[in-house]
Order: sequence, then structure tokens, then C-alpha cells
Amino acid sequence: MDSTQPLYQRLASHYRHAILQGALTPGERVPSVRTLMRVHRVSLSTALQACRELETEGLLEARPRSGYFVRTAVRPALPPPREPDCVIDAAQYVGVHHRISEYVARRAASDVRVDLSVAVAASHCYPLDELRRAMGRALRNEAQWMVRGAPGQGHPALRAALARRAYSQGMTPSADDVIITHGCTEALNVALRTVTSPGDTVAVESPTYFGLLQILESLGLRALEIPVSPQTGMSVEALDLALQTQPGIRAVVAVPNLHNPLGSIMPDAEKARLVALCEARGVPLIEDDSYGLLADDDVPLRALKSWDRSGNVMYCASLHKTLAPGMRLGWMSAGRWHRRAAMLKFTMSRANEGLAQAAVADVLEARVYDRHLHALRLTLRRDRSRLAAAVAQHFPPGTRACVPSGSMLLWVELPAGCSSWRVFETALRAGIAITPGTLFSNTGRFEHYMRISCGEGYSPRVEEALRRLGAIVAEASPRATA
Amino acid sequence: MDSTQPLYQRLASHYRHAILQGALTPGERVPSVRTLMRVHRVSLSTALQACRELETEGLLEARPRSGYFVRTAVRPALPPPREPDCVIDAAQYVGVHHRISEYVARRAASDVRVDLSVAVAASHCYPLDELRRAMGRALRNEAQWMVRGAPGQGHPALRAALARRAYSQGMTPSADDVIITHGCTEALNVALRTVTSPGDTVAVESPTYFGLLQILESLGLRALEIPVSPQTGMSVEALDLALQTQPGIRAVVAVPNLHNPLGSIMPDAEKARLVALCEARGVPLIEDDSYGLLADDDVPLRALKSWDRSGNVMYCASLHKTLAPGMRLGWMSAGRWHRRAAMLKFTMSRANEGLAQAAVADVLEARVYDRHLHALRLTLRRDRSRLAAAVAQHFPPGTRACVPSGSMLLWVELPAGCSSWRVFETALRAGIAITPGTLFSNTGRFEHYMRISCGEGYSPRVEEALRRLGAIVAEASPRATA
Repeated sequence: MDSTQPLYQRLASHYRHAILQGALTPGERVPSVRTLMRVHRVSLSTALQACRELETEGLLEARPRSGYFVRTAVRPALPPPREPDCVIDAAQYVGVHHRISEYVARRAASDVRVDLSVAVAASHCYPLDELRRAMGRALRNEAQWMVRGAPGQGHPALRAALARRAYSQGMTPSADDVIITHGCTEALNVALRTVTSPGDTVAVESPTYFGLLQILESLGLRALEIPVSPQTGMSVEALDLALQTQPGIRAVVAVPNLHNPLGSIMPDAEKARLVALCEARGVPLIEDDSYGLLADDDVPLRALKSWDRSGNVMYCASLHKTLAPGMRLGWMSAGRWHRRAAMLKFTMSRANEGLAQAAVADVLEARVYDRHLHALRLTLRRDRSRLAAAVAQHFPPGTRACVPSGSMLLWVELPAGCSSWRVFETALRAGIAITPGTLFSNTGRFEHYMRISCGEGYSPRVEEALRRLGAIVAEASPRATA
Repeated sequence: MDSTQPLYQRLASHYRHAILQGALTPGERVPSVRTLMRVHRVSLSTALQACRELETEGLLEARPRSGYFVRTAVRPALPPPREPDCVIDAAQYVGVHHRISEYVARRAASDVRVDLSVAVAASHCYPLDELRRAMGRALRNEAQWMVRGAPGQGHPALRAALARRAYSQGMTPSADDVIITHGCTEALNVALRTVTSPGDTVAVESPTYFGLLQILESLGLRALEIPVSPQTGMSVEALDLALQTQPGIRAVVAVPNLHNPLGSIMPDAEKARLVALCEARGVPLIEDDSYGLLADDDVPLRALKSWDRSGNVMYCASLHKTLAPGMRLGWMSAGRWHRRAAMLKFTMSRANEGLAQAAVADVLEARVYDRHLHALRLTLRRDRSRLAAAVAQHFPPGTRACVPSGSMLLWVELPAGCSSWRVFETALRAGIAITPGTLFSNTGRFEHYMRISCGEGYSPRVEEALRRLGAIVAEASPRATA
């Protein structure tokens, strides 16, 4: 438990845990405010604040004169999204650059007051003081990295720290297997360039992170979009079919843990099947694990790489979402393509800056990183629940969403026929930024989806923005009046 | 003059300047040691040390009982390298990856005691204290960049500082034209990817920096090698001929200022012709200006970009050689391809880290950067003279070299038939690292060349290594006994 949190939040965390773990079951009465005061030695106001916090999150409900009870439906009343049809379109060259340019240009020209588009938490959620102290120490002890190139694959201490931490996700890399990159973005570029040539086809999830589609486009690669279940991630059956029937697939890219934008988590059995399939078909599997450490549960999700016995999985991740969004530190473990990957990273941008690596290695080795991750997960879970509850309350009928078990993103299916691009444009004029679904696929299937984020936190201002957004969606929906 | 230098070095600098500016002419007697003591109010030992410093550099000679005189030939007695034949081979795919891998692997497996292979000055030549202080200030005032992504094109203060400084080289960019990159390497990657597709041909200098050849190889581009004069840089005539006769040349890459490895500086008239030619033929011109600020003369060399009227020149540079080899800060000004270049940089690695940019912006705006550059130029000039003098003294007849007017590199033509790869291997066993000529071209024309550097400084140990290296070259040269 994070001792820097206010007392009422720590108390709320305690009972949140009990509810989500099932120790307190739906409909059950929670200890009375007086009991809480006695058992936890807290004031009346602290006990009340904790209960209200859990009520706001939709975990408790207050019944007049009876006290607080665990809500029967702790999830907001959003219908789950539909499972995708198992349709695979022909591989095609990606054409998202111009859409993304337009998206970026419109946002830049607008006065965004409520930003629901970011795929990262608000800066105050990251341990700035710890990072600042670690950078101060690095500056005192290792300043020479400013005037001396770091070793090619990265600072030895950072590589060692990342390798050590990877064990918790079931991987067993040595520090020598780790290549430090400029964010996960560069790692994905390196991984794709290591095993593909322009004109090749790459199987990706549908929908998928638009940054990945941009990379494919910039490398002259074709995307073959594989359906993703909101519950279980990339369809291994569909991929298997595609690998049997479509020629020239040279790599598979998957985001198995807290998929962006869907939030799905592949069950371990599916992960194992995916790794085995790619291995059997001789197709390299590139894993993007940007969000894995943001799962609600403090037990880390396993990486695909942990089932890899032949070096066929190239693991890519970053510290961007979890520790330091401004420091641009990513890494990869490239399996049997390690040498070629290291050479390509060198050719693209040489070694990363050493000083920042030294500082971050320091933080990773300290307990503060685990404490920070724990607190960040709680914050995101709380804000995600509120976001989903607000969507359920304010959006028109026909809206669907699956609330993921981690991270900050919500992938919302709008009523059929509602153009998310139109919603994006209208919302932007009202100072609200969202990400329209059309950026996440080449197929046109996600025109009536949008991604919203609780990364910037939840406040009455955000609540009001979501109310406004719901009205905009309703106006843009053909059947809004039905 | 740098007030942190020892007094004797400042005194030596003063007279070095007088000699190189022609105020003291060859054969002329310099003021006596007693005069120096009186005029400059220095001790006998300081005056003597200054004269000996200039003697070691080959600028002065001591005549018994007469004092010190300006040497008649201040350049060491190396015959100049031959001008290249105006031969252009067909464009070809580059195949340097495996050679460079072998080069890197062999070096890594060896105990290098004298490193003559680095293309950067020794770390103590860079203003570590200033950088450390600036980073400390950034950490106090702008630490939030650790937890917040920097703006896409880079930190506004750094872009503004670079734009302002670019004026001294004849360019007129605005801060908005500047894109911050991970070193010049990433800038070159972005520039090439902005205007070429795999399979295209790019005209480059022959020889050229092997890092550029690696980039071309990794992007599936073909290199068309254009002869370079040791005196005047890339042959504009040969390029003109190539553009008329060879199909599919989509870009030209040139290093007009202190070419790596040759050290040549294009005269302004040639620069203007090159810019006009590329403009007339509609071929984008990519300028790599990594070394321009290291010219001996404190008057900056003009960039090709300064003649650019139509946005056809993409300027690429870095602070790697001039200010902070470990901080990986490069930049580009991409002319009329600005938007596509910015998008590609975003796709490749997002924005650079903000904190380091803030710190470096601070240093660039201070006078200390100019003082540092002045001191660095003097150091490199002194050590380069000594390096060239040692090569003249210890290498076998048939050795040629042009001593450049800046930077730290010497491109040495060995006697015909001498394999620089063999020299590299033998020298490495003796703990001496050099860069064999074979890495700098696809044509095989530079097998008997090598690049050596005074970047790590000059000492008796380096002198001894050069004596040993001369013997190795003699052994490896067929006519060494002639």
C-alpha cells in the first residue's frame, strides 16, 4: 500500500481489493462507518470519505438507514461489444498517414480543454520526485555520459535491471539480450525491419494502434488485419487460416496484454497457442507489451516471449506508459535476430543517451517503482470505472464497450451509422479531444468506434465533457431519436 | 581565448594565430624568450613551454644560440594525395553490413590501448562542467519533461537556439523549420526516407562515411559513388555527368565541410554550383554538416543550405562532435519536405527527450559554447599537426595524405598494394585501432587507404603507436623494401 496516499484512499483501496477479490460479495453489507472507525482507528470523516469514494466508483451503494452494500452489478451497465466476424480482407498497403496528419493538424488548431485522447496517464501520476532525485544522482556520479557515447546496446545497468524485471513476466533474458531503444516505437521499427522487406505482408490485429499502421506504411509493408476479440485478443484461428491461405506473410505483430485500443488480454492458453502457431509456420512473432504492467492485478501478465523456446518472438516494450513518459526509453529482446536487430538500431540512431539510462536503472532497482506501479494501477482502475459509468449514463442506447482490466483506454462502439470522425470534429469544437476509430484500421470497419482515455484523470470537468460527448454522439447517430 | 587553459597554452595560441594568419612569416624570428617574458609578463618557464609547444607542432624551429624561427614548411612533408580519376561505376546495392560487423566484432574482442579510429574528440575536450550545470538547472526548472512528452519537433528553446546559430553559416531557418533528431544518423535516415523508396539510387561521395553506406544498405537503396577531390570535395562535373547518364538517381548526399574521411572543404563557388545543379535537375540534395563547426578558422564555413532558394536542400547536423558526444542530439531543416520529414521522424521514434534538450539549449545560448568551440579547434589543430608529422616521419615512402583544415581525421593513402584490412588486423593485435579504407566505399578503390584520428589526443604513447603503425604498414607494403 502506498504510504503517500491520503488515509481515506488507503482505506478505500483495502475494501476495493476485498470486493474485487470476492472477499466481499455482491449484495453483502460492508462494515458500518462506526466499525470502520474502530477497526482501522480512523476518524468519522476518513471512514465516510472512503465509503463515498467506493460509491462513486460504483462498487458500493448506500441504502438509507442501512449503510453501504456491495453493488450487485459492479460493472457499469454497458452492453459488451460484439465479437468480431471472422472475416479477413486481402492484405493491403496502409494509407493512414494523411488521416493521421489531418487528425494531428485539427487537434493542433483547436483549444483542447478536456483531453480524452491520450494513451498515457497524466504527468502527476508518475514519480517525478524519484526520477528527479535519480537524475541528480546520475548527474553527480555518471555525468561523463554526456560527453561519451553509451555502449551500443545501452547502459549495462539499465539492461541488467530490465532483464531482471522481465523474469516476473515469465521471460528469462540476460542483460546481453536487451537492446535499449528510443521508446517502443523505435523497437517496433527495428523488429519489423529486421524480418521484413518492403512489399511484404505483416499480420496485425484489427483494430490496432494507429502508430503501428503508420510504421507499416512508412516501411512499405502491407497489413493483413486479423480479428481481435474484446475478451481474448487476436483470434488464433483466424491467424492460422490466414497463414495457410495468404501468401507472403513475413511477420505477425500482437499486443497480447491490454491491447490498444480494445484492452483485451489474451488468456495464457491462447498466448501459448499463438507462439506455437508462429513457430510451427516459421513466421516471426513481434510482441508489443507497452501496457502489460498496467493490469489492475499486481500479479504481472505473462509475455508471449515467456513461451518462446526457439527465439522466434521479438519482445518490444517501453517505460513510457509505466514510469517516465518524457524519457523515451524502450527496449527489445530480439531472440534469434538479436545481431541483425542490434545492427539496425545502430544504423538508425546509434546508442541512446547514457545519463537518462543510468537514472532510470536506479529507479527500476528500487522498491519505489513497484509502489508507484501499484498506485498507478489503482488510480487508473478508479478513473476507468468512472469513465465507463459516465459513458453508460450519458451515451445513447446502442453504445457498447468492454471495460478492460487495466490501463487507461476505453474502446467504445457507437450506435451503427454514427461517424466517429464527425463526433471527433464536433467534440473538438467543444474543446474535447477523442480518437476516432477510423485511425485504427484500414478496413473501414471501425468508423463507428472511438477510443477515449481516462489518462488525464477524472473530475467534474471530465464528467461534464462526457455528458456533452454523449449528446454529440446521440446527434450523430441515425437512430438517436428511435 | 579560453581562460581555463594554462597560461603557456594561451601564449602559444597567441603566436600560433600570428603564424597561421601570416603576421609572422616563414623564416622570421619570433620574439626572444626574454621579450616574451617582458611583453606578456610571464615567467621564464611559461615562455619556454609556449615555444616548445609550437616547436612540437612543427610551427617553430629552434636554432642554437639564435632563438626560435617560424618554420619554412609548416606543413609536414607528406605528399598530397592524388586527385581521383573521374570514373563512375554503376550504382550498386551496398554490402558493408558484414564488413562492419566483422570490424566491430574484432575491435570488441581486442584490448585497444591506443584508439586512432574515433571520429570524435576525447571526452575531456567537451565542456562537461557547463553541461552538468545546465542539466542541473534544467532538472530544477524543467524536470516535468521527464514525465511529459516533448513537442513533436523538439523543445522550442533548442529549436530556437539552433535556428539562431544557423545564421552564422548563412542559413535562415525559423525555429519551426527545425526538427530535433537522435543524432545526425537519425536525421540522415529521415532525410533519405523522405525522398527515396527502396530500389532507388542515391549519389554519394567516394569515399564516404561508412555509416551512410550502412543506412543506404538498410533502406535497400543503391549507391552511386561520385569522386571526391581531397581539395575541393565532391566533383560537381562528375555528378552532372552521372545525373545525365544514370537513371533513377533520387537524391544526392554530400558532406561539403570537412568531409569524412577526406577532410576536404568545398569552395563556396563549388557549393553554389552543386546546389544549382541539383535544383536544375530536380534531385533533392541532402547535406551532412556534422563537422562544419570544427574548421580551424573561427569564421564558420557556409552550409550548402545557405544557397538554397527553393527548399531543395535538406540540412542535417548534430551536436555530437561539437558539444556533447553522449547526448545524441541532432537536427535537420528539411526545406520543402518538412511535413513529410516531421511525420517520418514521429513514426520512427516520436519526439526526443525534453530534459536534455532544455539543458543543451541553455549552453548554446551562452558564450561558453563559442569559447569551447574555439578551444576545441585549437586542440584539434595542434594534435592533427602532430599526427600528420608522425605519419610523415614513421610511414614508408609512397604514403600520402592531405592534412585537413579542421576536425580530427586524417585520410592516409598507403603505398599501392598495401592492404589496410591487414594493417587493421595486425595493428589491433598490437592494441592499436584504425579504420581500414575498405569500409568507406563499395568500389574496392580504397583498399590501400586508412582513416586515423587525433580525437583521443596526442601523447608519447600515441607517438609510439604511430611508429609501430608505420612499421606495420611498411611490412604490409609490397614495395616496402624497394
